[in-house]
Amino acid sequence: MLMIDQLMEKIDEKSNPTVVGLDPLVQNIPKFIQTDAVKEFGNTRQGVSKAFLRFNLALLDQLHPLIPAVKLQMACYELYGEPGINVFNRTVERAHELNLVVIDDSKRNDIGSSAKLYAMGHLGKTPLFKGEEDVEKSDFLTINPFLGSDTISPFVDQLKENNKGVFILARTSNPSSKEYQEALIEGKPLYTKIAEDIHSLTLDNLGARGYSPIGAVVGATWPEEADQIRQAMPHAYFLVPGYGAQGATADGVIPSFDQQGYGALINSSRGVIFAYQNPKYQSKYSVENFAKSSAEAVKDMREDLLRSLSQAGKLPANW
Amino acid sequence: MLMIDQLMEKIDEKSNPTVVGLDPLVQNIPKFIQTDAVKEFGNTRQGVSKAFLRFNLALLDQLHPLIPAVKLQMACYELYGEPGINVFNRTVERAHELNLVVIDDSKRNDIGSSAKLYAMGHLGKTPLFKGEEDVEKSDFLTINPFLGSDTISPFVDQLKENNKGVFILARTSNPSSKEYQEALIEGKPLYTKIAEDIHSLTLDNLGARGYSPIGAVVGATWPEEADQIRQAMPHAYFLVPGYGAQGATADGVIPSFDQQGYGALINSSRGVIFAYQNPKYQSKYSVENFAKSSAEAVKDMREDLLRSLSQAGKLPANW
Repeated sequence: MLMIDQLMEKIDEKSNPTVVGLDPLVQNIPKFIQTDAVKEFGNTRQGVSKAFLRFNLALLDQLHPLIPAVKLQMACYELYGEPGINVFNRTVERAHELNLVVIDDSKRNDIGSSAKLYAMGHLGKTPLFKGEEDVEKSDFLTINPFLGSDTISPFVDQLKENNKGVFILARTSNPSSKEYQEALIEGKPLYTKIAEDIHSLTLDNLGARGYSPIGAVVGATWPEEADQIRQAMPHAYFLVPGYGAQGATADGVIPSFDQQGYGALINSSRGVIFAYQNPKYQSKYSVENFAKSSAEAVKDMREDLLRSLSQAGKLPANW
Repeated sequence: MLMIDQLMEKIDEKSNPTVVGLDPLVQNIPKFIQTDAVKEFGNTRQGVSKAFLRFNLALLDQLHPLIPAVKLQMACYELYGEPGINVFNRTVERAHELNLVVIDDSKRNDIGSSAKLYAMGHLGKTPLFKGEEDVEKSDFLTINPFLGSDTISPFVDQLKENNKGVFILARTSNPSSKEYQEALIEGKPLYTKIAEDIHSLTLDNLGARGYSPIGAVVGATWPEEADQIRQAMPHAYFLVPGYGAQGATADGVIPSFDQQGYGALINSSRGVIFAYQNPKYQSKYSVENFAKSSAEAVKDMREDLLRSLSQAGKLPANW
């Protein structure tokens, strides 16, 4: 089954279009985990990495029945060098054991030959002296389109070969995204040209339910555009950052969904994984049960999204 | 001394504006290194990584008297996971011992908070439970500007804090770069707008010789534009890929230099590091002396560049 169909199946299974960003930050890791890690591994990169792993595994344990997918922000792990990369890989493995789809949020790209190496490294197999090694990888990768189509095609080749997927940055959620993403091509903003190009790519890669494993990152902070971008890329699943901590509301992300309530995966990172610091959940669970606060936050987010989907007449009947 | 002045000092010391790309590829590693690595570590990622390290160290040993800097394409190392990252770091350390400037060619970026983590990870210090660890890092990092200025400023902050530098992609050397990089902003192509924005950033960061640690990546395959971009960013050093394997000639890269013969660092990767496979050098050195072929290739490249600089009346007097 194509990776996009596997994702949609899990979204239906959990009746939830939420992806949780496992983006650990040292200053927000619960104190008791910090204390234990320092005791065992010292105040070192190794220690922080072990704390991240324990944090992630506890979250996965509580959250996996509730969500279809997790997203790992590579910058959080890469910062810690080799032990950080180790935690990234072990988190991917555990998420797969728990039947979650995993999105590798690395936003990689480079010119042709290097793009191919990144594509193999994040979605494919590793070339050895003889043959290749099939290391466990994430299911989707985010990529940056700035360098143009000849740098995107190596990722498309690899995702086809390995039954994976990508989300291509079309419109990011940060305030400055307009500076370059609104440059004009034939009178239309760059992000709509990128959307058209992604649309062309999706036509060649359709899953059973009309979506392609080639999707798009569309920031939830620009709802007025999401509607237009949604129509421009009817076969591209949207990965939508910006809900919660970045200020987007459930109503704001609704235009990213199609009329049937599919087509968008809404990400929340800090709002979920650090929910134990939120007064709303603090009274209910001790710090030791931080992952239960996160589960509550996921349930609240799901309810919020489903309410808005319902109001918009987009709620899938079987949810 | 600002990092850009250190780089210029080394360029003068070696009378050479060449940077060598240490971009190992498993299929091009000399057979005797492959054989030894397989014997000791097996046909594994660890084995390939050890072969890359031996290859890099031999190249550094022969090339360091001839060049001011090396550039490491991260995709080559990241492909091999933790052992690959280890080789990247050990190569950086050895290059520093040999007094070379090191460029981390990772082309990173993401939205604000993640951009900061990438900036710390590649140019800064690593936050621990208490305080920070000062891990040895490269001197310059390549970054992708697509997401806009609020994603570039975390890198500027980190380079100032740690006396490092960046090269921001302005115009890449691949055929498809025109697709998005020529979108129009106020009637001018996006890459010139990016150049103007880089120019603004350089004004705040000038070294003793008029250049800023904030530079630009400008592909050598577009010489007719390089002249115009050179004028738009008089204080930005250019990292110029595309010489050799990508088809650009010495004459083609001349517009990237200023009238005094500074302002550009010309990269060659495959043409130098795999020179032992070039019939021109094969007759002179055995495979075991592959790094001597690379040294010859660097000398030939330098001669080629200096001849063209001289013809253009740009050759620095003291070279």
